[in-house]
Amino acid sequence: MELCHLGEFGLIGRIRLKAARRWSQILLGIGGDAAAFRPTAGTVLLATTDLLVEGIHFFREIPGFRLLGRKCLAVNVSDIAAMGGTPRLALVSLAVSSRERVEDIDALYQGLEEEAERHGVTIAGGDTSLSPGPLFVNVALLGEAGEGKWVQRSGAKLGDVIMVTGHLGASAAGLEAIRSARGQEEEIGAKQVRQWRRFKEMETSRLEAVERAIDRHFLPLPRVVEGRWLAVQGWAHAMIDLSDGLASDLAHLCRESGLGARIYEDKLPISPWARVVAEELGKDALALALAGGEDYELLFTTSRAGEVEQAFIREGLAEVTAIGEMVAEAEGISLVRKDRTLVPLKGGFDHFRVAKEQG
Amino acid sequence: MELCHLGEFGLIGRIRLKAARRWSQILLGIGGDAAAFRPTAGTVLLATTDLLVEGIHFFREIPGFRLLGRKCLAVNVSDIAAMGGTPRLALVSLAVSSRERVEDIDALYQGLEEEAERHGVTIAGGDTSLSPGPLFVNVALLGEAGEGKWVQRSGAKLGDVIMVTGHLGASAAGLEAIRSARGQEEEIGAKQVRQWRRFKEMETSRLEAVERAIDRHFLPLPRVVEGRWLAVQGWAHAMIDLSDGLASDLAHLCRESGLGARIYEDKLPISPWARVVAEELGKDALALALAGGEDYELLFTTSRAGEVEQAFIREGLAEVTAIGEMVAEAEGISLVRKDRTLVPLKGGFDHFRVAKEQG
Repeated sequence: MELCHLGEFGLIGRIRLKAARRWSQILLGIGGDAAAFRPTAGTVLLATTDLLVEGIHFFREIPGFRLLGRKCLAVNVSDIAAMGGTPRLALVSLAVSSRERVEDIDALYQGLEEEAERHGVTIAGGDTSLSPGPLFVNVALLGEAGEGKWVQRSGAKLGDVIMVTGHLGASAAGLEAIRSARGQEEEIGAKQVRQWRRFKEMETSRLEAVERAIDRHFLPLPRVVEGRWLAVQGWAHAMIDLSDGLASDLAHLCRESGLGARIYEDKLPISPWARVVAEELGKDALALALAGGEDYELLFTTSRAGEVEQAFIREGLAEVTAIGEMVAEAEGISLVRKDRTLVPLKGGFDHFRVAKEQG
Repeated sequence: MELCHLGEFGLIGRIRLKAARRWSQILLGIGGDAAAFRPTAGTVLLATTDLLVEGIHFFREIPGFRLLGRKCLAVNVSDIAAMGGTPRLALVSLAVSSRERVEDIDALYQGLEEEAERHGVTIAGGDTSLSPGPLFVNVALLGEAGEGKWVQRSGAKLGDVIMVTGHLGASAAGLEAIRSARGQEEEIGAKQVRQWRRFKEMETSRLEAVERAIDRHFLPLPRVVEGRWLAVQGWAHAMIDLSDGLASDLAHLCRESGLGARIYEDKLPISPWARVVAEELGKDALALALAGGEDYELLFTTSRAGEVEQAFIREGLAEVTAIGEMVAEAEGISLVRKDRTLVPLKGGFDHFRVAKEQG
């Protein structure tokens, strides 16, 4: 069924039916002029928004509408996680063509709801609009943190150890694998990757690594528990999530904190999946880990690195790795290579500049 | 200068410079992973979002980027007003082509900031993205209301008087004037209306009415003070803002409240500007007032209509008019014509259905 047969209020009705009120502080969800909720006394509210555009952030064929919905919410959850907050309430705006299939929009909302359920988030409202072509999804997400128990990008101190959760480069490697599989700059389904000759001839464990990297590209796993834990302990002085890539996001953190940074090549937790894909495609795994975006791991600075490591193991949280330290601003941001030479660290992703280079 | 010369972070930097922190509860504005603010104890938070799409809600040539920015914020402010809240914190997401002129985006933000200033709102963050073509603006707006001092659509009681602020139909009349001036379904500048022969030959006072209607179409004046006043007094049982048109928005209020409604043609405060435009174009002013959208006046129900009227005059608030009453759900929603006949009231605006009819 196409949307034009259902109508706007038909669509809103379908969405409303699916949205459960799962948070007792929600006083009014979908269907009012605005959503209403009662904040906990002594809390700080955190608000973030991320926009995903067809043809820029995703192609409708990959990874399919359900995973697309999950990703749209997950990238916002990651922003709340980066401040040590608990995600609570989402507003979802959609602009869709009237020729869009209702089943696809249902799948999109199913994904949004699945991810919301995973993080205890209530989808409490939004807006639907016609689009003259591309699909646009905007999620605004509100979260909470205890008064004084949240982290900014700007609090890093000279001498702080720089730490990162999880592994780096898998998401960018997954994207490279897809790009390589299609052999050209057109859309392709993830399943087609498996039919691609080079990957098909790989041994099973290596093929699995490629598939895991692709999965990671399509479905970020935001580090909410880890972010909140660090904020509540007060152990992270500054924190950011890795959306643009380590080099670029570290630069944001340094600029906000008025400091420089030094990170060590041999300490970087490069994803084993990224290494396999890089070997297979003749790419540089280090470059994927440094400049590839969308890992959605947490990068933070602390003066208690050893205690963080121990506590993360004790609490069953994500792996965490010390990768460098904060230095004076005048020293800039540099990478210490394995041969102990220093190279300035640049790079990252810029929407508008990239478009110009491609155009 | 085109955006591709400035880059994403250049754009964010420009936006950030312009955004003042004007609300003492804002702990962190533009530049973090999320915005952070401290809600007042005993408050309810209200959250709304509206998406405006080029080619659907606006054409870039009219009314120009500054007014477009004002409208994008104003329509959200109106949603907070409809619940009796005070707008506080906005997140603005933009998807723009890399060939967009930086000066136009600056003008858009100037308009957003002007409207924010007018309502005491802080633009505390957002997202910027590339668009493959059309311009998309999504605003998410947070507001506050005192605990128990906010209004839903669902609280209308049998026998309540239905009241409306201001006058109806001006915005739809303005749109008709523009459409008529251009003589076809293409974009045209508002200034060109003045050059149009029929309007040029009008006497000055009538031409001014046309221009005021056009202005009203491009710049809604959300009724924040009136909405808050009604909520604080507890005098509005149910309230909604008129975005889709009286017929459609009244139907929302009735459905939420489980009641019907009866409104009287001879009581409707049809805008004098709408009357002039309707006469000039051979349109029905009543239809513009009933089914034309975007008046952004408040429609509410109350058991104290007389006291509301007196108090609105005393407090220097907007004009307010009693237009009908709430009846049993089984009676449906009807219009009492001047000759006392009853006609069922239908209509309003549906994004996806309209698109189908046009396509």
